[in-house]
Amino acid sequence: MTALVNGQPTRCVDLADRGFQYGDGTFTTIAVRQGVPLFWALHLARLERDCQRLLISFPGSECLEPDVRTLCMTQLEGVLKIQISRGIGGRGYRLPQPQRVTRVLSMHPLPEYPPELWKVGVEIRVCGSRLGINPRLAGIKHMNRLEQILARAEWAADEIREGIMLDAEGYVTEGTMSNVFLVKDGTLHTPKIDRCGVAGVMRGITIATAQENGVDFVESRVTLEELYAADEVFLTNCVIGLWPVHRCEHRTYGIGPITEEIDRWLRTKAESELAAACNGRSGLSSSLPVS
Amino acid sequence: MTALVNGQPTRCVDLADRGFQYGDGTFTTIAVRQGVPLFWALHLARLERDCQRLLISFPGSECLEPDVRTLCMTQLEGVLKIQISRGIGGRGYRLPQPQRVTRVLSMHPLPEYPPELWKVGVEIRVCGSRLGINPRLAGIKHMNRLEQILARAEWAADEIREGIMLDAEGYVTEGTMSNVFLVKDGTLHTPKIDRCGVAGVMRGITIATAQENGVDFVESRVTLEELYAADEVFLTNCVIGLWPVHRCEHRTYGIGPITEEIDRWLRTKAESELAAACNGRSGLSSSLPVS
Repeated sequence: MTALVNGQPTRCVDLADRGFQYGDGTFTTIAVRQGVPLFWALHLARLERDCQRLLISFPGSECLEPDVRTLCMTQLEGVLKIQISRGIGGRGYRLPQPQRVTRVLSMHPLPEYPPELWKVGVEIRVCGSRLGINPRLAGIKHMNRLEQILARAEWAADEIREGIMLDAEGYVTEGTMSNVFLVKDGTLHTPKIDRCGVAGVMRGITIATAQENGVDFVESRVTLEELYAADEVFLTNCVIGLWPVHRCEHRTYGIGPITEEIDRWLRTKAESELAAACNGRSGLSSSLPVS
Repeated sequence: MTALVNGQPTRCVDLADRGFQYGDGTFTTIAVRQGVPLFWALHLARLERDCQRLLISFPGSECLEPDVRTLCMTQLEGVLKIQISRGIGGRGYRLPQPQRVTRVLSMHPLPEYPPELWKVGVEIRVCGSRLGINPRLAGIKHMNRLEQILARAEWAADEIREGIMLDAEGYVTEGTMSNVFLVKDGTLHTPKIDRCGVAGVMRGITIATAQENGVDFVESRVTLEELYAADEVFLTNCVIGLWPVHRCEHRTYGIGPITEEIDRWLRTKAESELAAACNGRSGLSSSLPVS
Protein backbone atom coordinates (compact mmCIF):
# COMPACT_ATOMS: atom_id res chain seq x y z
CA MET A 1 0.00 0.00 0.00
CA THR A 2 1.26 3.43 -0.97
CA ALA A 3 -0.27 6.29 0.94
CA LEU A 4 -0.20 10.04 1.44
CA VAL A 5 -1.34 11.73 4.63
CA ASN A 6 -1.89 15.44 3.97
CA GLY A 7 0.30 15.04 0.92
CA GLN A 8 3.19 13.38 2.75
CA PRO A 9 4.25 9.77 2.12
CA THR A 10 3.65 8.13 5.49
CA ARG A 11 1.49 5.45 7.07
CA CYS A 12 1.19 7.39 10.31
CA VAL A 13 -1.99 9.01 11.57
CA ASP A 14 -1.96 10.88 14.90
CA LEU A 15 -3.88 8.88 17.49
CA ALA A 16 -5.66 12.09 18.49
CA ASP A 17 -7.12 12.31 14.98
CA ARG A 18 -10.88 12.24 15.27
CA GLY A 19 -10.90 9.62 12.54
CA PHE A 20 -9.27 7.21 14.98
CA GLN A 21 -11.03 8.54 18.06
CA TYR A 22 -14.60 8.56 16.74
CA GLY A 23 -14.69 7.41 13.11
CA ASP A 24 -15.24 11.13 12.47
CA GLY A 25 -14.77 11.28 8.73
CA THR A 26 -15.91 10.16 5.32
CA PHE A 27 -14.38 8.26 2.42
CA THR A 28 -14.73 7.11 -1.14
CA THR A 29 -13.26 4.18 -3.03
CA ILE A 30 -12.23 4.64 -6.66
CA ALA A 31 -11.28 2.16 -9.36
CA VAL A 32 -8.05 3.20 -11.07
CA ARG A 33 -7.48 1.94 -14.62
CA GLN A 34 -4.53 2.86 -16.80
CA GLY A 35 -3.64 5.45 -14.20
CA VAL A 36 -7.08 7.06 -14.45
CA PRO A 37 -9.31 7.38 -11.37
CA LEU A 38 -12.64 6.41 -12.94
CA PHE A 39 -15.58 8.76 -12.43
CA TRP A 40 -13.34 11.18 -10.57
CA ALA A 41 -15.76 14.10 -10.84
CA LEU A 42 -18.50 12.04 -9.19
CA HIS A 43 -16.24 10.86 -6.39
CA LEU A 44 -15.11 14.42 -5.77
CA ALA A 45 -18.73 15.58 -5.66
CA ARG A 46 -19.66 12.81 -3.22
CA LEU A 47 -16.74 13.67 -0.94
CA GLU A 48 -17.77 17.32 -0.96
CA ARG A 49 -21.44 16.53 -0.31
CA ASP A 50 -20.63 14.05 2.49
CA CYS A 51 -18.20 16.51 4.11
CA GLN A 52 -20.89 19.19 4.02
CA ARG A 53 -23.43 16.91 5.64
CA LEU A 54 -20.93 15.96 8.37
CA LEU A 55 -19.93 19.64 8.85
CA ILE A 56 -16.36 18.78 7.84
CA SER A 57 -14.40 21.44 5.95
CA PHE A 58 -13.99 20.05 2.44
CA PRO A 59 -10.33 20.31 1.45
CA GLY A 60 -11.16 21.13 -2.18
CA SER A 61 -10.15 19.56 -5.46
CA GLU A 62 -7.03 21.74 -5.67
CA CYS A 63 -5.84 20.00 -2.51
CA LEU A 64 -6.88 16.46 -3.44
CA GLU A 65 -5.98 16.27 -7.11
CA PRO A 66 -2.20 16.58 -6.79
CA ASP A 67 -2.27 13.66 -4.31
CA VAL A 68 -4.50 11.64 -6.64
CA ARG A 69 -2.14 12.27 -9.54
CA THR A 70 0.88 11.22 -7.49
CA LEU A 71 -0.69 7.95 -6.41
CA CYS A 72 -2.16 7.09 -9.81
CA MET A 73 1.30 7.47 -11.30
CA THR A 74 2.78 4.99 -8.83
CA GLN A 75 0.20 2.30 -9.59
CA LEU A 76 -1.77 2.31 -12.83
CA GLU A 77 -4.31 -0.36 -11.88
CA GLY A 78 -5.80 -0.55 -8.42
CA VAL A 79 -8.18 0.89 -5.90
CA LEU A 80 -7.70 4.38 -4.56
CA LYS A 81 -9.28 5.14 -1.21
CA ILE A 82 -9.66 8.75 -0.12
CA GLN A 83 -10.52 9.49 3.49
CA ILE A 84 -11.26 12.93 4.88
CA SER A 85 -11.32 13.05 8.67
CA ARG A 86 -12.13 16.05 10.81
CA GLY A 87 -8.52 16.05 12.03
CA ILE A 88 -7.23 16.73 15.53
CA GLY A 89 -8.92 18.80 18.18
CA GLY A 90 -12.13 19.81 19.82
CA ARG A 91 -13.11 19.11 23.44
CA GLY A 92 -14.71 15.68 23.43
CA TYR A 93 -17.30 15.43 20.68
CA ARG A 94 -17.38 19.20 20.17
CA LEU A 95 -16.18 20.30 16.73
CA PRO A 96 -12.72 21.90 16.58
CA GLN A 97 -12.69 25.53 15.46
CA PRO A 98 -11.12 25.94 12.97
CA GLN A 99 -11.03 22.45 11.54
CA ARG A 100 -7.75 21.21 10.13
CA VAL A 101 -8.96 18.15 8.31
CA THR A 102 -6.76 15.16 7.61
CA ARG A 103 -6.77 13.78 4.09
CA VAL A 104 -5.52 10.25 3.64
CA LEU A 105 -5.14 8.74 0.19
CA SER A 106 -4.07 5.13 -0.14
CA MET A 107 -3.61 2.91 -3.17
CA HIS A 108 -4.46 -0.77 -2.96
CA PRO A 109 -4.27 -3.71 -5.36
CA LEU A 110 -7.49 -4.66 -7.15
CA PRO A 111 -9.24 -7.44 -5.22
CA GLU A 112 -8.74 -10.82 -6.90
CA TYR A 113 -12.22 -11.98 -7.80
CA PRO A 114 -12.75 -14.90 -10.19
CA PRO A 115 -13.92 -13.59 -13.61
CA GLU A 116 -16.95 -15.94 -13.47
CA LEU A 117 -18.56 -13.70 -10.86
CA TRP A 118 -19.42 -11.18 -13.56
CA LYS A 119 -20.59 -13.88 -16.01
CA VAL A 120 -22.52 -16.41 -13.95
CA GLY A 121 -23.34 -14.14 -11.03
CA VAL A 122 -22.71 -14.33 -7.30
CA GLU A 123 -24.29 -16.04 -4.35
CA ILE A 124 -25.41 -13.73 -1.57
CA ARG A 125 -27.15 -14.09 1.78
CA VAL A 126 -29.38 -12.04 4.02
CA CYS A 127 -27.69 -10.76 7.19
CA GLY A 128 -29.23 -10.81 10.65
CA SER A 129 -27.39 -7.59 11.63
CA ARG A 130 -29.50 -4.63 10.71
CA LEU A 131 -28.92 -0.96 9.91
CA GLY A 132 -30.06 1.57 12.48
CA ILE A 133 -32.30 4.26 11.03
CA ASN A 134 -30.71 7.71 11.13
CA PRO A 135 -31.65 10.13 8.33
CA ARG A 136 -28.85 12.52 9.40
CA LEU A 137 -26.25 9.93 8.39
CA ALA A 138 -28.18 8.16 5.62
CA GLY A 139 -26.45 8.15 2.26
CA ILE A 140 -23.08 9.23 3.63
CA LYS A 141 -20.10 6.93 3.18
CA HIS A 142 -18.84 7.80 6.64
CA MET A 143 -16.16 6.11 8.70
CA ASN A 144 -18.62 4.58 11.23
CA ARG A 145 -18.83 1.11 9.76
CA LEU A 146 -19.36 -1.24 12.69
CA GLU A 147 -22.78 -2.28 11.41
CA GLN A 148 -21.24 -3.51 8.17
CA ILE A 149 -18.39 -5.22 10.01
CA LEU A 150 -20.73 -7.16 12.29
CA ALA A 151 -22.85 -8.11 9.29
CA ARG A 152 -19.79 -9.29 7.33
CA ALA A 153 -18.71 -11.36 10.34
CA GLU A 154 -21.86 -13.47 10.04
CA TRP A 155 -20.45 -15.74 7.36
CA ALA A 156 -17.08 -17.23 6.48
CA ALA A 157 -17.83 -19.22 3.33
CA ASP A 158 -15.81 -17.78 0.45
CA GLU A 159 -18.47 -18.64 -2.12
CA ILE A 160 -20.88 -16.18 -0.52
CA ARG A 161 -19.79 -12.85 -1.89
CA GLU A 162 -22.08 -10.40 -0.22
CA GLY A 163 -24.67 -10.04 2.51
CA ILE A 164 -27.87 -8.05 2.17
CA MET A 165 -28.63 -5.76 5.09
CA LEU A 166 -32.12 -4.86 6.22
CA ASP A 167 -32.90 -1.70 8.13
CA ALA A 168 -34.25 -1.72 11.67
CA GLU A 169 -37.78 -2.08 10.27
CA GLY A 170 -36.84 -5.03 8.08
CA TYR A 171 -36.66 -3.31 4.68
CA VAL A 172 -33.94 -4.36 2.25
CA THR A 173 -31.39 -1.54 2.10
CA GLU A 174 -28.04 -2.53 0.63
CA GLY A 175 -25.18 -5.02 0.68
CA THR A 176 -22.39 -4.66 3.25
CA MET A 177 -20.15 -3.18 0.53
CA SER A 178 -22.50 -2.63 -2.40
CA ASN A 179 -25.90 -1.33 -3.42
CA VAL A 180 -28.62 -3.67 -4.56
CA PHE A 181 -30.99 -3.45 -7.53
CA LEU A 182 -33.85 -5.67 -8.58
CA VAL A 183 -35.88 -6.03 -11.74
CA LYS A 184 -39.54 -6.99 -11.61
CA ASP A 185 -41.79 -7.07 -14.69
CA GLY A 186 -39.36 -4.91 -16.63
CA THR A 187 -39.01 -2.21 -13.98
CA LEU A 188 -35.74 -1.50 -12.16
CA HIS A 189 -36.07 -1.05 -8.40
CA THR A 190 -33.58 0.01 -5.77
CA PRO A 191 -34.07 0.75 -2.05
CA LYS A 192 -34.33 4.38 -0.96
CA ILE A 193 -31.25 5.52 0.94
CA ASP A 194 -33.02 8.23 2.92
CA ARG A 195 -33.01 6.60 6.37
CA CYS A 196 -29.83 4.49 6.32
CA GLY A 197 -27.35 3.00 3.88
CA VAL A 198 -24.74 4.42 1.53
CA ALA A 199 -25.65 6.23 -1.69
CA GLY A 200 -22.84 4.66 -3.70
CA VAL A 201 -21.29 6.45 -6.68
CA MET A 202 -21.93 3.39 -8.88
CA ARG A 203 -25.53 3.31 -7.63
CA GLY A 204 -25.92 6.87 -8.91
CA ILE A 205 -24.28 6.02 -12.22
CA THR A 206 -26.51 2.96 -12.59
CA ILE A 207 -29.69 4.93 -11.95
CA ALA A 208 -28.62 7.70 -14.36
CA THR A 209 -27.68 5.18 -17.04
CA ALA A 210 -30.94 3.28 -16.73
CA GLN A 211 -32.96 6.48 -16.95
CA GLU A 212 -30.95 7.80 -19.92
CA ASN A 213 -31.78 4.56 -21.70
CA GLY A 214 -35.47 4.67 -20.92
CA VAL A 215 -35.63 1.87 -18.34
CA ASP A 216 -38.57 2.24 -15.96
CA PHE A 217 -37.06 2.97 -12.58
CA VAL A 218 -38.44 3.18 -9.04
CA GLU A 219 -36.71 4.03 -5.76
CA SER A 220 -38.77 2.66 -2.88
CA ARG A 221 -38.90 0.68 0.35
CA VAL A 222 -38.14 -2.87 -0.73
CA THR A 223 -39.28 -5.87 1.29
CA LEU A 224 -37.50 -9.19 1.55
CA GLU A 225 -40.50 -10.76 -0.20
CA GLU A 226 -39.97 -8.38 -3.13
CA LEU A 227 -36.28 -9.31 -3.25
CA TYR A 228 -37.17 -12.99 -3.44
CA ALA A 229 -39.94 -12.35 -5.97
CA ALA A 230 -37.70 -10.33 -8.29
CA ASP A 231 -36.94 -11.53 -11.81
CA GLU A 232 -33.36 -10.27 -11.69
CA VAL A 233 -31.10 -9.01 -8.88
CA PHE A 234 -27.71 -7.33 -9.14
CA LEU A 235 -25.18 -5.49 -6.98
CA THR A 236 -23.07 -2.45 -7.76
CA ASN A 237 -20.05 -0.66 -6.40
CA CYS A 238 -17.17 1.22 -7.99
CA VAL A 239 -14.67 -1.63 -7.66
CA ILE A 240 -16.82 -4.53 -8.87
CA GLY A 241 -18.93 -2.49 -11.26
CA LEU A 242 -21.97 -4.78 -11.54
CA TRP A 243 -22.36 -8.31 -10.23
CA PRO A 244 -25.46 -10.25 -11.22
CA VAL A 245 -26.88 -12.31 -8.34
CA HIS A 246 -27.58 -15.95 -9.15
CA ARG A 247 -28.59 -17.02 -5.68
CA CYS A 248 -29.84 -15.46 -2.47
CA GLU A 249 -30.60 -17.96 0.30
CA HIS A 250 -33.13 -20.50 -1.09
CA ARG A 251 -33.89 -18.44 -4.20
CA THR A 252 -32.01 -18.72 -7.50
CA TYR A 253 -32.13 -16.12 -10.26
CA GLY A 254 -31.14 -16.19 -13.88
CA ILE A 255 -29.07 -13.36 -15.34
CA GLY A 256 -31.82 -11.41 -17.01
CA PRO A 257 -31.85 -9.12 -20.05
CA ILE A 258 -32.11 -5.86 -18.12
CA THR A 259 -29.15 -6.74 -15.90
CA GLU A 260 -27.12 -7.61 -19.00
CA GLU A 261 -28.09 -4.42 -20.74
CA ILE A 262 -27.27 -2.21 -17.76
CA ASP A 263 -23.95 -4.00 -17.32
CA ARG A 264 -23.13 -3.24 -20.97
CA TRP A 265 -24.07 0.42 -20.57
CA LEU A 266 -21.97 0.74 -17.41
CA ARG A 267 -18.96 -0.80 -19.15
CA THR A 268 -19.38 1.57 -22.07
CA LYS A 269 -19.60 4.49 -19.65
CA ALA A 270 -16.39 3.44 -17.92
CA GLU A 271 -14.67 3.04 -21.29
CA SER A 272 -15.75 6.51 -22.43
CA GLU A 273 -14.63 7.95 -19.13
CA LEU A 274 -11.27 6.27 -19.58
CA ALA A 275 -10.92 7.38 -23.17
CA ALA A 276 -11.87 10.97 -22.29
CA ALA A 277 -9.35 11.01 -19.45
CA CYS A 278 -6.59 9.57 -21.59
CA ASN A 279 -7.35 12.13 -24.26
CA GLY A 280 -7.02 14.88 -21.70
CA ARG A 281 -10.66 15.88 -21.87
CA SER A 282 -11.05 15.71 -18.08
CA GLY A 283 -9.52 18.25 -15.73
CA LEU A 284 -7.68 15.86 -13.49
CA SER A 285 -6.41 13.48 -16.06
CA SER A 286 -4.51 15.88 -18.30
CA SER A 287 -1.33 15.19 -16.41
CA LEU A 288 -2.01 11.54 -15.82
CA PRO A 289 0.02 8.95 -17.66
CA VAL A 290 -1.60 7.31 -20.65
CA SER A 291 -0.93 3.59 -20.90
CA MET B 1 -1.02 14.19 26.09
CA THR B 2 1.11 11.19 26.94
CA ALA B 3 0.25 8.02 25.09
CA LEU B 4 1.24 4.41 24.57
CA VAL B 5 0.37 2.47 21.43
CA ASN B 6 0.80 -1.25 22.09
CA GLY B 7 3.02 -0.29 24.99
CA GLN B 8 5.28 2.04 23.02
CA PRO B 9 5.42 5.79 23.62
CA THR B 10 4.22 7.20 20.29
CA ARG B 11 1.37 9.23 18.86
CA CYS B 12 1.37 7.27 15.63
CA VAL B 13 -1.37 4.88 14.56
CA ASP B 14 -1.06 3.05 11.23
CA LEU B 15 -3.56 4.47 8.76
CA ALA B 16 -4.55 0.91 7.86
CA ASP B 17 -5.68 0.36 11.45
CA ARG B 18 -9.36 -0.51 11.36
CA GLY B 19 -9.89 2.02 14.12
CA PHE B 20 -9.06 4.76 11.60
CA GLN B 21 -10.62 3.00 8.63
CA TYR B 22 -13.98 2.08 10.17
CA GLY B 23 -14.13 3.20 13.81
CA ASP B 24 -13.69 -0.52 14.44
CA GLY B 25 -12.96 -0.53 18.15
CA THR B 26 -14.14 0.30 21.62
CA PHE B 27 -12.96 2.55 24.45
CA THR B 28 -13.38 3.59 28.03
CA THR B 29 -12.58 6.81 29.87
CA ILE B 30 -11.26 6.63 33.42
CA ALA B 31 -10.80 9.31 36.08
CA VAL B 32 -7.31 9.12 37.59
CA ARG B 33 -6.87 10.50 41.11
CA GLN B 34 -3.65 10.35 43.11
CA GLY B 35 -2.30 8.06 40.44
CA VAL B 36 -5.21 5.64 40.86
CA PRO B 37 -7.47 4.75 37.91
CA LEU B 38 -10.82 4.86 39.70
CA PHE B 39 -13.10 1.83 39.33
CA TRP B 40 -10.45 0.04 37.30
CA ALA B 41 -12.03 -3.39 37.71
CA LEU B 42 -15.30 -2.10 36.24
CA HIS B 43 -13.58 -0.39 33.31
CA LEU B 44 -11.63 -3.56 32.60
CA ALA B 45 -14.84 -5.59 32.70
CA ARG B 46 -16.58 -3.16 30.33
CA LEU B 47 -13.68 -3.28 27.88
CA GLU B 48 -13.75 -7.07 27.94
CA ARG B 49 -17.54 -7.23 27.50
CA ASP B 50 -17.54 -4.65 24.69
CA CYS B 51 -14.68 -6.43 22.90
CA GLN B 52 -16.60 -9.71 23.13
CA ARG B 53 -19.72 -8.14 21.68
CA LEU B 54 -17.72 -6.61 18.84
CA LEU B 55 -15.85 -9.91 18.26
CA ILE B 56 -12.56 -8.17 19.05
CA SER B 57 -9.88 -10.25 20.79
CA PHE B 58 -9.62 -8.78 24.28
CA PRO B 59 -5.95 -8.07 25.06
CA GLY B 60 -6.34 -9.05 28.73
CA SER B 61 -5.55 -7.27 31.97
CA GLU B 62 -1.97 -8.59 31.95
CA CYS B 63 -1.45 -6.63 28.77
CA LEU B 64 -3.30 -3.46 29.77
CA GLU B 65 -2.25 -3.01 33.40
CA PRO B 66 1.46 -2.36 32.84
CA ASP B 67 0.50 0.42 30.40
CA VAL B 68 -2.02 1.83 32.87
CA ARG B 69 0.59 1.84 35.63
CA THR B 70 3.12 3.59 33.42
CA LEU B 71 0.71 6.36 32.44
CA CYS B 72 -0.73 6.85 35.93
CA MET B 73 2.80 7.37 37.22
CA THR B 74 3.46 10.13 34.69
CA GLN B 75 0.33 12.06 35.62
CA LEU B 76 -1.38 11.56 38.98
CA GLU B 77 -4.56 13.50 38.20
CA GLY B 78 -6.24 13.30 34.84
CA VAL B 79 -8.34 11.29 32.45
CA LEU B 80 -7.06 8.02 31.06
CA LYS B 81 -8.60 6.87 27.80
CA ILE B 82 -8.13 3.28 26.70
CA GLN B 83 -8.98 2.31 23.13
CA ILE B 84 -8.93 -1.22 21.76
CA SER B 85 -9.18 -1.37 17.98
CA ARG B 86 -9.34 -4.50 15.86
CA GLY B 87 -5.93 -3.60 14.44
CA ILE B 88 -4.72 -3.93 10.87
CA GLY B 89 -5.98 -6.40 8.31
CA GLY B 90 -8.94 -8.19 6.86
CA ARG B 91 -10.27 -7.80 3.33
CA GLY B 92 -12.67 -4.90 3.44
CA TYR B 93 -15.07 -5.28 6.34
CA ARG B 94 -14.17 -8.92 6.83
CA LEU B 95 -12.52 -9.67 10.17
CA PRO B 96 -8.78 -10.33 10.09
CA GLN B 97 -7.76 -13.84 11.18
CA PRO B 98 -5.99 -13.82 13.55
CA GLN B 99 -6.71 -10.39 15.01
CA ARG B 100 -3.76 -8.38 16.23
CA VAL B 101 -5.59 -5.70 18.14
CA THR B 102 -4.18 -2.25 18.74
CA ARG B 103 -4.32 -0.90 22.29
CA VAL B 104 -3.99 2.84 22.68
CA LEU B 105 -3.79 4.42 26.11
CA SER B 106 -3.66 8.18 26.41
CA MET B 107 -3.58 10.46 29.43
CA HIS B 108 -5.34 13.82 29.30
CA PRO B 109 -5.77 16.72 31.72
CA LEU B 110 -9.00 16.84 33.71
CA PRO B 111 -11.50 19.08 31.90
CA GLU B 112 -11.77 22.48 33.59
CA TYR B 113 -15.38 22.74 34.70
CA PRO B 114 -16.47 25.44 37.17
CA PRO B 115 -17.08 23.89 40.63
CA GLU B 116 -20.61 25.41 40.70
CA LEU B 117 -21.75 22.82 38.17
CA TRP B 118 -21.78 20.16 40.88
CA LYS B 119 -23.44 22.50 43.40
CA VAL B 120 -26.06 24.45 41.48
CA GLY B 121 -26.45 22.03 38.61
CA VAL B 122 -26.13 22.35 34.85
CA GLU B 123 -28.26 23.59 32.02
CA ILE B 124 -28.92 21.05 29.29
CA ARG B 125 -30.89 20.92 26.05
CA VAL B 126 -32.68 18.38 23.91
CA CYS B 127 -30.91 17.55 20.64
CA GLY B 128 -32.61 17.18 17.28
CA SER B 129 -30.09 14.53 16.15
CA ARG B 130 -31.31 11.13 17.16
CA LEU B 131 -29.79 7.75 17.91
CA GLY B 132 -30.42 4.98 15.39
CA ILE B 133 -31.81 1.82 16.95
CA ASN B 134 -29.41 -1.12 16.73
CA PRO B 135 -29.54 -3.67 19.55
CA ARG B 136 -26.30 -5.29 18.30
CA LEU B 137 -24.39 -2.12 19.18
CA ALA B 138 -26.52 -0.86 22.07
CA GLY B 139 -24.64 -0.41 25.33
CA ILE B 140 -21.19 -0.60 23.73
CA LYS B 141 -18.87 2.39 24.03
CA HIS B 142 -17.66 1.83 20.50
CA MET B 143 -15.62 4.13 18.29
CA ASN B 144 -18.52 4.97 15.94
CA ARG B 145 -19.50 8.29 17.43
CA LEU B 146 -20.80 10.40 14.56
CA GLU B 147 -24.29 10.55 16.06
CA GLN B 148 -22.91 12.16 19.21
CA ILE B 149 -20.70 14.52 17.20
CA LEU B 150 -23.59 15.79 15.10
CA ALA B 151 -25.70 16.20 18.23
CA ARG B 152 -22.92 18.12 20.01
CA ALA B 153 -22.58 20.37 16.95
CA GLU B 154 -26.15 21.62 17.45
CA TRP B 155 -25.19 24.20 20.07
CA ALA B 156 -22.26 26.49 20.77
CA ALA B 157 -23.30 28.26 23.99
CA ASP B 158 -20.81 27.38 26.74
CA GLU B 159 -23.44 27.55 29.46
CA ILE B 160 -25.24 24.55 27.99
CA ARG B 161 -23.25 21.63 29.27
CA GLU B 162 -24.96 18.67 27.71
CA GLY B 163 -27.53 17.65 25.13
CA ILE B 164 -30.11 14.92 25.64
CA MET B 165 -30.44 12.51 22.74
CA LEU B 166 -33.64 10.73 21.81
CA ASP B 167 -33.72 7.46 19.94
CA ALA B 168 -35.24 7.10 16.47
CA GLU B 169 -38.66 6.57 18.08
CA GLY B 170 -38.36 9.68 20.24
CA TYR B 171 -37.55 8.10 23.61
CA VAL B 172 -35.03 9.83 25.88
CA THR B 173 -31.86 7.73 25.85
CA GLU B 174 -28.77 9.54 27.13
CA GLY B 175 -26.66 12.67 26.93
CA THR B 176 -24.03 13.02 24.21
CA MET B 177 -21.31 12.17 26.78
CA SER B 178 -23.28 11.07 29.84
CA ASN B 179 -26.17 8.94 31.04
CA VAL B 180 -29.32 10.53 32.38
CA PHE B 181 -31.36 9.72 35.47
CA LEU B 182 -34.63 11.17 36.71
CA VAL B 183 -36.48 11.02 39.98
CA LYS B 184 -40.29 11.01 40.11
CA ASP B 185 -42.27 10.56 43.30
CA GLY B 186 -39.29 9.08 45.07
CA THR B 187 -38.41 6.54 42.37
CA LEU B 188 -35.19 6.67 40.36
CA HIS B 189 -35.60 6.12 36.61
CA THR B 190 -33.11 5.72 33.83
CA PRO B 191 -33.61 4.85 30.15
CA LYS B 192 -33.02 1.28 29.05
CA ILE B 193 -29.86 0.94 26.94
CA ASP B 194 -31.01 -2.15 25.06
CA ARG B 195 -31.62 -0.59 21.63
CA CYS B 196 -29.06 2.26 21.49
CA GLY B 197 -26.91 4.35 23.81
CA VAL B 198 -23.89 3.65 25.97
CA ALA B 199 -24.13 1.69 29.23
CA GLY B 200 -21.68 3.93 31.10
CA VAL B 201 -19.56 2.60 33.94
CA MET B 202 -20.80 5.42 36.20
CA ARG B 203 -24.38 4.58 35.18
CA GLY B 204 -23.79 1.05 36.44
CA ILE B 205 -22.23 2.29 39.67
CA THR B 206 -25.12 4.69 40.20
CA ILE B 207 -27.73 1.98 39.74
CA ALA B 208 -25.85 -0.42 42.04
CA THR B 209 -25.42 2.27 44.69
CA ALA B 210 -29.07 3.29 44.59
CA GLN B 211 -30.19 -0.33 44.90
CA GLU B 212 -27.75 -1.07 47.73
CA ASN B 213 -29.25 1.85 49.60
CA GLY B 214 -32.83 0.81 49.03
CA VAL B 215 -33.85 3.46 46.49
CA ASP B 216 -36.75 2.36 44.29
CA PHE B 217 -35.32 2.02 40.81
CA VAL B 218 -36.80 1.45 37.35
CA GLU B 219 -35.11 1.04 33.96
CA SER B 220 -37.62 1.82 31.23
CA ARG B 221 -38.44 3.68 28.03
CA VAL B 222 -38.53 7.33 29.09
CA THR B 223 -40.52 9.92 27.19
CA LEU B 224 -39.65 13.58 26.86
CA GLU B 225 -42.84 14.36 28.79
CA GLU B 226 -41.55 12.22 31.65
CA LEU B 227 -38.22 14.04 31.57
CA TYR B 228 -39.99 17.39 31.85
CA ALA B 229 -42.35 16.08 34.54
CA ALA B 230 -39.53 14.69 36.70
CA ASP B 231 -38.90 16.09 40.18
CA GLU B 232 -35.13 15.77 39.83
CA VAL B 233 -32.80 15.09 36.89
CA PHE B 234 -29.09 14.32 36.92
CA LEU B 235 -26.31 13.16 34.60
CA THR B 236 -23.45 10.77 35.23
CA ASN B 237 -20.16 9.78 33.67
CA CYS B 238 -16.80 8.71 35.05
CA VAL B 239 -15.15 12.08 34.61
CA ILE B 240 -17.87 14.37 35.98
CA GLY B 241 -19.26 11.86 38.48
CA LEU B 242 -22.75 13.32 38.96
CA TRP B 243 -24.09 16.63 37.68
CA PRO B 244 -27.53 17.72 38.88
CA VAL B 245 -29.58 19.34 36.12
CA HIS B 246 -31.12 22.71 36.99
CA ARG B 247 -32.58 23.47 33.60
CA CYS B 248 -33.60 21.62 30.46
CA GLU B 249 -35.13 23.84 27.76
CA HIS B 250 -38.11 25.67 29.33
CA ARG B 251 -38.16 23.50 32.46
CA THR B 252 -36.21 24.26 35.66
CA TYR B 253 -35.49 21.73 38.38
CA GLY B 254 -34.33 22.06 41.97
CA ILE B 255 -31.55 19.84 43.25
CA GLY B 256 -33.60 17.28 45.10
CA PRO B 257 -32.87 15.08 48.08
CA ILE B 258 -32.42 11.83 46.15
CA THR B 259 -29.91 13.42 43.76
CA GLU B 260 -27.99 14.80 46.75
CA GLU B 261 -28.00 11.47 48.50
CA ILE B 262 -26.84 9.54 45.45
CA ASP B 263 -24.11 12.10 44.85
CA ARG B 264 -22.91 11.59 48.43
CA TRP B 265 -22.91 7.81 48.06
CA LEU B 266 -20.99 8.02 44.77
CA ARG B 267 -18.37 10.28 46.34
CA THR B 268 -18.01 7.87 49.26
CA LYS B 269 -17.63 4.99 46.84
CA ALA B 270 -14.90 6.81 44.93
CA GLU B 271 -13.12 7.65 48.18
CA SER B 272 -13.23 4.03 49.36
CA GLU B 273 -11.99 2.88 45.98
CA LEU B 274 -9.14 5.38 46.25
CA ALA B 275 -8.29 4.40 49.82
CA ALA B 276 -8.37 0.69 48.95
CA ALA B 277 -6.12 1.28 45.95
CA CYS B 278 -3.67 3.38 47.95
CA ASN B 279 -3.58 0.69 50.64
CA GLY B 280 -2.74 -1.87 48.02
CA ARG B 281 -5.97 -3.80 48.37
CA SER B 282 -6.65 -3.71 44.64
CA GLY B 283 -4.69 -5.79 42.15
CA LEU B 284 -3.65 -3.01 39.84
CA SER B 285 -2.84 -0.35 42.39
CA SER B 286 -0.26 -2.20 44.46
CA SER B 287 2.52 -0.75 42.37
CA LEU B 288 0.90 2.62 41.84
CA PRO B 289 2.30 5.66 43.58
CA VAL B 290 0.52 6.83 46.72
CA SER B 291 0.25 10.56 47.10
